[in-house]
Amino acid sequence: MGILTPKEARASFARGLDRPTAGMCPGFAQANLVALPERYAFDFLLFAQRNPKPMPLLDVVAPGETSPIAPGNLATELPRYRVFRSGELIEEVGDASEVWRDDLVTFLIGCSFTFEQALIEAGIDIAHISQCVNVPMFATSVPTRPAGIFSGPLVVSMRPIPASQVADAVRITSRYPSVHGAPVHVGDPEQIGIRDLSQPDYGEAVEIPEGTIPVFWACGVTPQAALAQAKADLVITHAPGRMLITDAPDHRYLIP
Amino acid sequence: MGILTPKEARASFARGLDRPTAGMCPGFAQANLVALPERYAFDFLLFAQRNPKPMPLLDVVAPGETSPIAPGNLATELPRYRVFRSGELIEEVGDASEVWRDDLVTFLIGCSFTFEQALIEAGIDIAHISQCVNVPMFATSVPTRPAGIFSGPLVVSMRPIPASQVADAVRITSRYPSVHGAPVHVGDPEQIGIRDLSQPDYGEAVEIPEGTIPVFWACGVTPQAALAQAKADLVITHAPGRMLITDAPDHRYLIP
Repeated sequence: MGILTPKEARASFARGLDRPTAGMCPGFAQANLVALPERYAFDFLLFAQRNPKPMPLLDVVAPGETSPIAPGNLATELPRYRVFRSGELIEEVGDASEVWRDDLVTFLIGCSFTFEQALIEAGIDIAHISQCVNVPMFATSVPTRPAGIFSGPLVVSMRPIPASQVADAVRITSRYPSVHGAPVHVGDPEQIGIRDLSQPDYGEAVEIPEGTIPVFWACGVTPQAALAQAKADLVITHAPGRMLITDAPDHRYLIP
Repeated sequence: MGILTPKEARASFARGLDRPTAGMCPGFAQANLVALPERYAFDFLLFAQRNPKPMPLLDVVAPGETSPIAPGNLATELPRYRVFRSGELIEEVGDASEVWRDDLVTFLIGCSFTFEQALIEAGIDIAHISQCVNVPMFATSVPTRPAGIFSGPLVVSMRPIPASQVADAVRITSRYPSVHGAPVHVGDPEQIGIRDLSQPDYGEAVEIPEGTIPVFWACGVTPQAALAQAKADLVITHAPGRMLITDAPDHRYLIP
């Protein structure tokens, strides 16, 4: 279907298209979406402020506002949504208008697609992409810094990186603090409570090529684990891999 | 009196010492302090999230909590405080315990002292330091992005930088996004509504050395302008130049 602009992609999702967003609209940042009632919003915003590596905020949209990086209807312009009540996943829907409420505050959280593109451009193979699986993610023994009702373990994604390219991977991703930034841990999974790399808690296992070191980045699934524990009466999120495609070019998040 | 640790410096302020903090505890980050009632806290946190260049948050301390970067009593451990009611400056006090309230949320906001040190180490002269005056600051015609009750102009600080060193100054400060980061504007003050560099809105004028270009950084006075407009019933801040000295080493805020 050719390359869509972010606006066209969002419009096609609003009309009912349902597909993973990986690889769509190259060069534009994609975002995790979390919408929750206003009375939890301060705690959640503080939780993000205190845990910027797993929860880098690209934007926060208050009731009645639209986002400059995705002006339009955030209740319809993603491919698919998940609806949670009291921490339980109730349903997945293509259009969240029916369950949306006027008091929801929407958080748009950076996603690692942006830095993966930069790694690939630097000649670093991303195993889960080459192997066509979802990135493996693990709940760690490292706690997040709590805020109000939100707490829980840091969740990390793992990418096996050739030993000779680990320094490059650190250097490149550290320049993208708004999309998880530098790794939180390099090598020795046991130190952060990961016993078996072949048994991820989320996503899928990757085959680990010889000569690579497991490198761990803070992951956007971290708030989902905290939300499940907090049991808010209503939370709406994107469905995994079906992100919000924003109008913000990736390079906006590059530092320096 | 020798070089104090941050903890010793805070203790001496709690005992009544009152002096500007510039140059104290080299290598440790200093912070602007803003404490305001919980009911304004979401709006203010959102205002900071939306305007990270003028309001880079180093920490947010909820009622009953202490800050990991300055554990202790934030109502006494600064040299001097300002107390505002309904947007009006009511008094300056050395000890804020009397006016402090249980429902205050405290925001610690990054300060340019950190990046000025890095500029000096790179051989870049900082005019207001050489000339022993306070940095000149200007309200601009650039609006902040509003959040709830908070809005107002972006306030910038100005440093004249030799033309041959402007690129270095950009590069170095961009590596400190938590302490205002890269300049928001280089040269041509009129484009951002500044008519006369010799008439700053805050701080003091500097003599502008020949061959320098005025370079403008987002400034931590921005939230003060927004707070004055918002007329919250109570706001407590540090007194200008009398900052919170934190335990956080400057290099923690260096990226990458």
